[in-house]
Amino acid sequence: MSNRFIRRAEPCEIVRKLAAKLIMERKLVEEGDNILIAVSGGKDSTMLAWVLSALRPALKVQYSLAALHISSDFCSCCKKSILLQKLNEWDVPFKDLSVPIIGRLKPGRKMNCYWCSTQRRTELLKYAGENNFNKIALGHHLDDIIETFFMNMTGKGVLSAMPVLLQYRKYPVSLIRPLALIEEREIIASADKMGVLKAACTCPYGVNSGRRDMRGKIAAFTGNSGAVKRRIFASLSSGEKDLLIERE
Amino acid sequence: MSNRFIRRAEPCEIVRKLAAKLIMERKLVEEGDNILIAVSGGKDSTMLAWVLSALRPALKVQYSLAALHISSDFCSCCKKSILLQKLNEWDVPFKDLSVPIIGRLKPGRKMNCYWCSTQRRTELLKYAGENNFNKIALGHHLDDIIETFFMNMTGKGVLSAMPVLLQYRKYPVSLIRPLALIEEREIIASADKMGVLKAACTCPYGVNSGRRDMRGKIAAFTGNSGAVKRRIFASLSSGEKDLLIERE
Repeated sequence: MSNRFIRRAEPCEIVRKLAAKLIMERKLVEEGDNILIAVSGGKDSTMLAWVLSALRPALKVQYSLAALHISSDFCSCCKKSILLQKLNEWDVPFKDLSVPIIGRLKPGRKMNCYWCSTQRRTELLKYAGENNFNKIALGHHLDDIIETFFMNMTGKGVLSAMPVLLQYRKYPVSLIRPLALIEEREIIASADKMGVLKAACTCPYGVNSGRRDMRGKIAAFTGNSGAVKRRIFASLSSGEKDLLIERE
Repeated sequence: MSNRFIRRAEPCEIVRKLAAKLIMERKLVEEGDNILIAVSGGKDSTMLAWVLSALRPALKVQYSLAALHISSDFCSCCKKSILLQKLNEWDVPFKDLSVPIIGRLKPGRKMNCYWCSTQRRTELLKYAGENNFNKIALGHHLDDIIETFFMNMTGKGVLSAMPVLLQYRKYPVSLIRPLALIEEREIIASADKMGVLKAACTCPYGVNSGRRDMRGKIAAFTGNSGAVKRRIFASLSSGEKDLLIERE
C-alpha cells in the first residue's frame, strides 16, 4: 500500500485496507473460523470488532464473530451501553464475564499490568476452549508491537515482538492481531469518525511508565513516520526466524 | 563484564578486556591464524592493531599479525610516520598498497562511501589470498554495528548487522571485528592514552549524512548508555539466526 494512499485516504478506509492486507497476507482469518474478539471497551478492540465485521464481504471466507468483555473489580468506567449498541449494529454478539483481578492477588502483592494481562489471557483461553472458538483476536496495533520489540531489545537483550499469529501447542486456539499494520493515530482517527472514541474506556492504572518512555523515544527515533514504522515491522519477518509468526 | 568495571577501569584496560571477551566467546582468533589487519590510519584500526598485539600472551594461542594500509588517490593526511613507529613498537609488520579509488570510477560517477569500501574490500581479499592470510581484522566498533543494524531496519526493512565473524564461501579467508563490543568513546579515550588519537587520520569525505543522523538518533534513543547498547548487541544473537556470525 503506497504511503500516498495512507496520507490521503479517509481514516476508516485506511484501517479497513491495512487490516485486510495483513489478514490476507498472513492468513489470519480462514474458512469456518469461529473468532472471539477480546473487547476491553477501549478504542483499539472496539475498532477491531468493527473492522472484522466490516471485512466480511471482502475476505470471501465464512467466519463467525463474538465479543467477550472481561469486567474487572477495579474498572467500571466502560460506557458499555454504547459498546453494546455498536456491537449490535455490527452484528457481533456480546458476552460479559466478571473476573476479580485484584481479588485474586496473593496477600501483599500489588496490582500491575503483567498480573492483569495474564489473568485476562487465562480467562480468554478458558472461555474460547469451552465455547468452541478456534481464534482469539486482540486489538494490538503497530505502535504496541514496535514498543514491545524495542523494550525487549533494549531491556532484555532479545529480539522478540508480539506475533500477529500465535499458535498454542497446549490449546486448540490461536491468537491473531489483525490491527498490527495500523498506527495508533490511524485507529484514533477512525474511532473518532465512527463515534466510539469518546465512549472508549482507558485503564485507570494507565500505561506503565517504561512503555510511555519508550513511546516517546520511538517517536523521536522514527520521526513519527508511518513508513519508517512499517519498515521496522517488515524487518521483523526478514530473518530465518519470522518474529511475527509463532508456533509454540 | 560488569558495568561497574566499565565505568571505573582505565580506558586501555576496557578495550583489552572487551576485545579479549569477544575474541574468546566467538573464537575470532585461533591457533595458527595469520591475521591481516586493515589499518586506515584512523583511531579504530590503529587501536585494533594495538589490542591484537597486546593480547598475544592472554589469548594462549599462536598467531601472526601484519598490517595493510591502502593509500588512496584522495587522502594523504595520514601521519604515517607515527602509525609506522607505533606498529613497529607493537611488533606488527606494515605494508602499504596504493589504490586509485577515484581513478577507478567510471566516467560521470561520483565518489561515495560504498564505492570506496567495495574497492578496499576487494584489494584486501586479493592481498590476503596472495599472501597466505586466513583472516582479515577490521576496526568496526559497537556504535558502527548498531548504526548499521538500525539503518538496515528503518531504511531497508531488514534485520541485518555487521557480523563479528564472516566466513566467505568464495575465498579461503574470514573477516573478524574484534572491537565489536567496544563503544567509540572508549576507543577514543584509549587512543588518546596511547598517544595515537592526534595522529589519527579521518576521511576527507567525512561520515555520510544518513549515518550521522542515525548516530544522533541512537544516542537519544539509548540515552548513550553503554549497557543499553551492549544489550542491543546481545539481542542480535538471540534468535534462530545469529546476526553476528555469517557463513556465506
